[in-house]
Amino acid sequence: MQITPTGTLRVSVIHGPNLNMLGLREPDIYGTDTFDDTNRKIRDHARSIGVEVRITQSNHEGAIIDAIQDAVSWADAIIINPGGYTHYSIAIADAIRAVRLPAVEVHISNIHGREEFRRHSVVAPATAGQIAGFGTASYLLALDAVRHLIMDAKH
Amino acid sequence: MQITPTGTLRVSVIHGPNLNMLGLREPDIYGTDTFDDTNRKIRDHARSIGVEVRITQSNHEGAIIDAIQDAVSWADAIIINPGGYTHYSIAIADAIRAVRLPAVEVHISNIHGREEFRRHSVVAPATAGQIAGFGTASYLLALDAVRHLIMDAKH
Amino acid sequence: MQITPTGTLRVSVIHGPNLNMLGLREPDIYGTDTFDDTNRKIRDHARSIGVEVRITQSNHEGAIIDAIQDAVSWADAIIINPGGYTHYSIAIADAIRAVRLPAVEVHISNIHGREEFRRHSVVAPATAGQIAGFGTASYLLALDAVRHLIMDAKH
Amino acid sequence: MQITPTGTLRVSVIHGPNLNMLGLREPDIYGTDTFDDTNRKIRDHARSIGVEVRITQSNHEGAIIDAIQDAVSWADAIIINPGGYTHYSIAIADAIRAVRLPAVEVHISNIHGREEFRRHSVVAPATAGQIAGFGTASYLLALDAVRHLIMDAKH
Amino acid sequence: MQITPTGTLRVSVIHGPNLNMLGLREPDIYGTDTFDDTNRKIRDHARSIGVEVRITQSNHEGAIIDAIQDAVSWADAIIINPGGYTHYSIAIADAIRAVRLPAVEVHISNIHGREEFRRHSVVAPATAGQIAGFGTASYLLALDAVRHLIMDAKH
Amino acid sequence: MQITPTGTLRVSVIHGPNLNMLGLREPDIYGTDTFDDTNRKIRDHARSIGVEVRITQSNHEGAIIDAIQDAVSWADAIIINPGGYTHYSIAIADAIRAVRLPAVEVHISNIHGREEFRRHSVVAPATAGQIAGFGTASYLLALDAVRHLIMDAKH
Amino acid sequence: MQITPTGTLRVSVIHGPNLNMLGLREPDIYGTDTFDDTNRKIRDHARSIGVEVRITQSNHEGAIIDAIQDAVSWADAIIINPGGYTHYSIAIADAIRAVRLPAVEVHISNIHGREEFRRHSVVAPATAGQIAGFGTASYLLALDAVRHLIMDAKH
Amino acid sequence: MQITPTGTLRVSVIHGPNLNMLGLREPDIYGTDTFDDTNRKIRDHARSIGVEVRITQSNHEGAIIDAIQDAVSWADAIIINPGGYTHYSIAIADAIRAVRLPAVEVHISNIHGREEFRRHSVVAPATAGQIAGFGTASYLLALDAVRHLIMDAKH
Amino acid sequence: MQITPTGTLRVSVIHGPNLNMLGLREPDIYGTDTFDDTNRKIRDHARSIGVEVRITQSNHEGAIIDAIQDAVSWADAIIINPGGYTHYSIAIADAIRAVRLPAVEVHISNIHGREEFRRHSVVAPATAGQIAGFGTASYLLALDAVRHLIMDAKH
Amino acid sequence: MQITPTGTLRVSVIHGPNLNMLGLREPDIYGTDTFDDTNRKIRDHARSIGVEVRITQSNHEGAIIDAIQDAVSWADAIIINPGGYTHYSIAIADAIRAVRLPAVEVHISNIHGREEFRRHSVVAPATAGQIAGFGTASYLLALDAVRHLIMDAKH
Amino acid sequence: MQITPTGTLRVSVIHGPNLNMLGLREPDIYGTDTFDDTNRKIRDHARSIGVEVRITQSNHEGAIIDAIQDAVSWADAIIINPGGYTHYSIAIADAIRAVRLPAVEVHISNIHGREEFRRHSVVAPATAGQIAGFGTASYLLALDAVRHLIMDAKH
Amino acid sequence: MQITPTGTLRVSVIHGPNLNMLGLREPDIYGTDTFDDTNRKIRDHARSIGVEVRITQSNHEGAIIDAIQDAVSWADAIIINPGGYTHYSIAIADAIRAVRLPAVEVHISNIHGREEFRRHSVVAPATAGQIAGFGTASYLLALDAVRHLIMDAKH
Repeated sequence: MQITPTGTLRVSVIHGPNLNMLGLREPDIYGTDTFDDTNRKIRDHARSIGVEVRITQSNHEGAIIDAIQDAVSWADAIIINPGGYTHYSIAIADAIRAVRLPAVEVHISNIHGREEFRRHSVVAPATAGQIAGFGTASYLLALDAVRHLIMDAKH
Repeated sequence: MQITPTGTLRVSVIHGPNLNMLGLREPDIYGTDTFDDTNRKIRDHARSIGVEVRITQSNHEGAIIDAIQDAVSWADAIIINPGGYTHYSIAIADAIRAVRLPAVEVHISNIHGREEFRRHSVVAPATAGQIAGFGTASYLLALDAVRHLIMDAKH
Repeated sequence: MQITPTGTLRVSVIHGPNLNMLGLREPDIYGTDTFDDTNRKIRDHARSIGVEVRITQSNHEGAIIDAIQDAVSWADAIIINPGGYTHYSIAIADAIRAVRLPAVEVHISNIHGREEFRRHSVVAPATAGQIAGFGTASYLLALDAVRHLIMDAKH
Repeated sequence: MQITPTGTLRVSVIHGPNLNMLGLREPDIYGTDTFDDTNRKIRDHARSIGVEVRITQSNHEGAIIDAIQDAVSWADAIIINPGGYTHYSIAIADAIRAVRLPAVEVHISNIHGREEFRRHSVVAPATAGQIAGFGTASYLLALDAVRHLIMDAKH
Repeated sequence: MQITPTGTLRVSVIHGPNLNMLGLREPDIYGTDTFDDTNRKIRDHARSIGVEVRITQSNHEGAIIDAIQDAVSWADAIIINPGGYTHYSIAIADAIRAVRLPAVEVHISNIHGREEFRRHSVVAPATAGQIAGFGTASYLLALDAVRHLIMDAKH
Repeated sequence: MQITPTGTLRVSVIHGPNLNMLGLREPDIYGTDTFDDTNRKIRDHARSIGVEVRITQSNHEGAIIDAIQDAVSWADAIIINPGGYTHYSIAIADAIRAVRLPAVEVHISNIHGREEFRRHSVVAPATAGQIAGFGTASYLLALDAVRHLIMDAKH
Repeated sequence: MQITPTGTLRVSVIHGPNLNMLGLREPDIYGTDTFDDTNRKIRDHARSIGVEVRITQSNHEGAIIDAIQDAVSWADAIIINPGGYTHYSIAIADAIRAVRLPAVEVHISNIHGREEFRRHSVVAPATAGQIAGFGTASYLLALDAVRHLIMDAKH
Repeated sequence: MQITPTGTLRVSVIHGPNLNMLGLREPDIYGTDTFDDTNRKIRDHARSIGVEVRITQSNHEGAIIDAIQDAVSWADAIIINPGGYTHYSIAIADAIRAVRLPAVEVHISNIHGREEFRRHSVVAPATAGQIAGFGTASYLLALDAVRHLIMDAKH
Repeated sequence: MQITPTGTLRVSVIHGPNLNMLGLREPDIYGTDTFDDTNRKIRDHARSIGVEVRITQSNHEGAIIDAIQDAVSWADAIIINPGGYTHYSIAIADAIRAVRLPAVEVHISNIHGREEFRRHSVVAPATAGQIAGFGTASYLLALDAVRHLIMDAKH
Repeated sequence: MQITPTGTLRVSVIHGPNLNMLGLREPDIYGTDTFDDTNRKIRDHARSIGVEVRITQSNHEGAIIDAIQDAVSWADAIIINPGGYTHYSIAIADAIRAVRLPAVEVHISNIHGREEFRRHSVVAPATAGQIAGFGTASYLLALDAVRHLIMDAKH
Repeated sequence: MQITPTGTLRVSVIHGPNLNMLGLREPDIYGTDTFDDTNRKIRDHARSIGVEVRITQSNHEGAIIDAIQDAVSWADAIIINPGGYTHYSIAIADAIRAVRLPAVEVHISNIHGREEFRRHSVVAPATAGQIAGFGTASYLLALDAVRHLIMDAKH
Repeated sequence: MQITPTGTLRVSVIHGPNLNMLGLREPDIYGTDTFDDTNRKIRDHARSIGVEVRITQSNHEGAIIDAIQDAVSWADAIIINPGGYTHYSIAIADAIRAVRLPAVEVHISNIHGREEFRRHSVVAPATAGQIAGFGTASYLLALDAVRHLIMDAKH
């Protein structure tokens, strides 16, 4: 990893399909935080630990790939919740491999304890690590995790 | 289901990828009705049974998810032919789960009697029911089916 | 299909095992309509669309095969809910293939959203199409579907 | 379970295919007790613990389903050895689910230690429990087990 | 095998489901000989080689098991075409095991060159051998095969 | 089996991992009897039928194997509930094979009707039989079953 | 099949690997007839039914393919026992497809009742039919079967 | 194939997701040619063999389907590198089937020698042929291959 | 969750097999922090966020189960790295289910990007969430995650 | 790759089993070019692009391995159509790995669009790339591909 | 491998579960040598070739892992018979990986020719090699193998 | 085993495909000993322990089978490294079964730790034991192993 972060860390946070429905969508699984609440928490926590975030959401697999490719020009790392694409989007995994930025995969629910088809992530082998099951707090933990990754890479 | 349809029933009819090629595309499998013929039949039948339809088609998985999410603001039900996405789009299935509208899955051909990979629908567990194999009449039957679903829900 | 229906359409409606328990049997899955209610609805709807039906039910796989074979002498089409046999009765599927009548597979519940073993129908490849998930209304939709099949075959 | 057994417990004992051949059939696997011996033992033990039994045997899957459905009108519980049907008869399993009586699955041999295809029971998920491997004594243990089930349900 | 055939050999020929439709049923697969033609050929050939046959056909799995069990009292061998039951009837296989008569499995078509699900016979492990693919002549070859089996057993 | 029990029958009852949590652990699955209750019932029933029991429990796979090996010096039979080890401990199964004592596998819940991974027992092929699904009464039935096994072996 | 056999029928009989060891090799499975005995029986029976045979044996997959290709210039049909190659030699199957001669697959033992890996023949889909399980008599039955095949083709 | 190319051959070259990253993306796998280099080579080679090409790239599955459908109005053939979509996009395969133009599937790396999930192409059954493993030269070979396909179709 | 943490949060941190070898063991996968370094970091971070930790390590599956059961008497939550047991210890998963404490599964490496057999955790369905891939920082993130879990449970 | 081609490139072209039957063999799949036609085309094209070819064909897996090993002494590259061996000959794949010459795998038909068992090549992981589906032109494209491979290796 | 054996080679010989039962345990599979006989043979042979051995046996998976870890402080190599743990103990395999000592896996019986579940060793990928099937002589061969491994490492 | 070795033991050592390339072939996997070096070591070691060896190598599966069959006339045992044929040659396994000589399977590399397809040997069930992973020393250990096998057979 040839990253040399000077000063602030820049992170691209990418939400996959249906995450814009947060709060409305199956609240017993995904909790009651709305999408706006979640992003506000992300921004607040990022600011508090000196991280600059840009947040995007799309239902379009291609748009998510575009966002990953865009990150290469400005970001130090990627936090991505690939939503339903987690389980089949080899194209998203390839995009992460292509940009060679450290990436953290995030899931609101504990995908490893749900339906069989949700327990396998094709995106995971392209990322540094995964955080799943802590509600919207998974994103906040991911921000902290990115810091650990970048610091470890510097040493 | 907390739906309380007053007067006309509103249904979002969503055609997935390649359905715009109907009539041109493998007519021995999909029949000779064109896409326009099919939509005209859908509109005629809908009108005759007092249903208001809005019809969309897209080759883009993301656009189909957008359409499903849009339906939540005005429609009482969804009729969807996910085309090729039927067999892998967990993201479309998640969108249907997220909007919590009754949905009917439609297929022009009898997918259960075709190639092995077409016999499994990842979308099906998110829908109320499935109609497959009756050519473009599958859509007309789906309109009737929606009425049955809503009525049963009211009782 | 060399069928030339003159005047009324004749349809053999065949209920598989345990459907005689309708109304009593797991009502959260199969609804509260009794077997008699269901048959009355089928007869009423058939009459209203000019279809003559004969209805049989058996728990015996062999009796169901017999009924399919009998249909060849008088019926224009078959509507069949193979019940539990759906998932393993190659013999029933072979019977449908043998008589070469258009057949519609019906299920009260949405089998594609239930236990894994219920998502695969060995009967389906022998039929024209499938209707599943609309409660006992699935049978009524199947009657309409048969009309579409016969009409399409005539054109 | 809404069962309120007053006085004697009534149990329907159902033998599946080929059990009428007991004693003649592969005695190294199924033992030397004949079918009549077995039923006499069942009746004796039932009488000794105050249980009234009715015993049926059939090679016909449909007849077994009929017997299960009949039990609903008079029996408090079912003891069933589904024989070869154990491994594929979803229809028998559905019948047990339909009648909602506590059922005990019995096997003379230890099916879990025989050929791979005998180790999986599709009937089991519909029953309360299973007793396998104790020769014809499996039936006697099942009678005792039924008593435990009914008593636990009463408390 | 403790068989001591004195004089004429007696063989039970058992046809499984849908074989009564021979000649009408998918003639490109099963040929144009009718069921009666086939049985006449079987009787003629049996007579010419000094074999006494009794022929039964049933669509009922249970009736086929009954017929196998009946054979034990008079027949020296069984010839069986289990039809669609070939692929799942463990109960029929168990019946053959139970009666311990030499059995020949017959198929009109070459099941090993058809759909995947037809390539596996659960009945086969219970039989002495299999003849498949020679049209209705498969039965005639099976009669000859039975003679070879009995003679080899005598030596 | 060269066992010649003179007088009292001695049985080693071995509880696997987490069974010491009985009563506290998922009571809807495992019931409300505590571990002490269960052992008291086992001892009472054993005494009433003239069986001497020694009861051990361990969360350690190795300790369970040790207990099985110890049994060889004093016990006539083993009753074992391998708990979670049921599904993968080939080492426990090998231990039972090594000591060559008749063993009965016990489960409180009906493992064949629970999650897919609980439906397969690697221990089963090493035992004489299995009793599952009758709550803590499964152990009492197992004591009776042991008696049947030993008696059958004597005849 | 454009075969016009004039006068005598010519058949290439091809023995695969290890069949030259017949009589020596696992006699409980393959019988006590030696390879020479078997060929003598084949020649005798062929002569008696007016068939000219040429017999080859090879342990070499390539030599078997060569023999199949050679047959195209003189034989009316092929009888082949592919031995161990049965289960993986797509190349032998392709050779049979390439020469387009009717072929009969022969096995001495009932391969469908042996180890799992012996139950699947990759050669079968390229042949007209299969005869298995009748000891060396399987070859004699195959000679008769060839006659049936050619006669049916002529009608 | 009813194609009658007069004069110049027109080919639609479609690059799938992440191919715009060529040169930057895992150069040990995909080489050091940039995306622009690659397209220049394609254009140069096309010109030299009298082929007119139009080149598109998209990360969006839907846009790729749109491009395939657009080709029907002007192109004689399609060259497509579906990138990561190769392994799951039944929708892209269906689009190729729908337009019925000869298509060549191209891969820069030898997908058959990489991770297991890359060895299976769901797009392949819809194409005429595949060229994989020759770096960006795969595209140039595909242009030549298209010429062979069209010429063979003309003869 | 009936947890009512007053003041300090108590967490049982359980290290599975081979984690005592940290620093020595495959440092390219598991990093260069020793076991003692890791525990010191855990204690420091716990203290800084007001969490009291007790740390145990064992190579014994049974000892890990014991530790989980012990936690029920004093801890508010469990952090567990099951090491190699992750992939088969149903007994550890059952222990977590039995104690009903919120648990966080931790992995030093990103198991989802390693060998196939490491990508599936049988422990996961029993936990609230998972953190994997961040070196020994995974434990620190898990401490934070526990706080989020407990706080969410309180609201 | 330590190849230093001076002047002419030398290529060993190896045809696998049944390719000598070209033109006669299933012409709808493999075309009407005979084996001699094909080799003439190969020689002509090779000469036109300055490549020296030696062509061998064998039905013998061992002879193909011999040919691959021979190539090491004189050839710069290998073009191989392994025919039916493609799908199981690990020994041929190992031979290619052993000689460490760049190899191109050729198929006349598009194996990825045929029967399931033809879609997997065990030889592929040992080669540089694959060309499939262009009839006998596949060989000509392979000759060009070899030139690209060698040239890329030189740069 | 940074091993620099000076003088005597030290080897830790670790016996897994149930090996203490040798001689008593299924002697047709494991032979009649007792555990003590076996260890005496090991010690004798070790002495004769100048190897110092320490022998441990445990039924406890954790104790085996402890023994592997202990070896790191004094042994040059490990000889391990993981017994039943062979087939699932990823934790033992990880321990061997962790200590980075050359290890030889030993089996008394030929596990590759026994039940399907015994043919796969999860421990094998962590070892240098395997010796199976030579009775207790497998251990003696392993001692010789260790010498070969160390000597090869020195060159 | 009816072997009565008088004086010298005679062993047929058979090398499978590509082993003649030893030393040249992937030396990181197979080592740097050439084929001649290896055979010299085998002969030296054999002489030193009083074993007479005959060594053959072939790339031809059929020739390997021939060699196995030849051994029956003079050898007391077989040592075989089936190379790539290990994983699919049922015909070689059958040949070993046919000759009924004790056989030892040898591999230079530890096949159980390599690619998935190399971990399964279809030859193994036909052999007495296996030695894998010790470089060319595997052959020397196999010679010693043969002595153990013959001696054990004598006792």
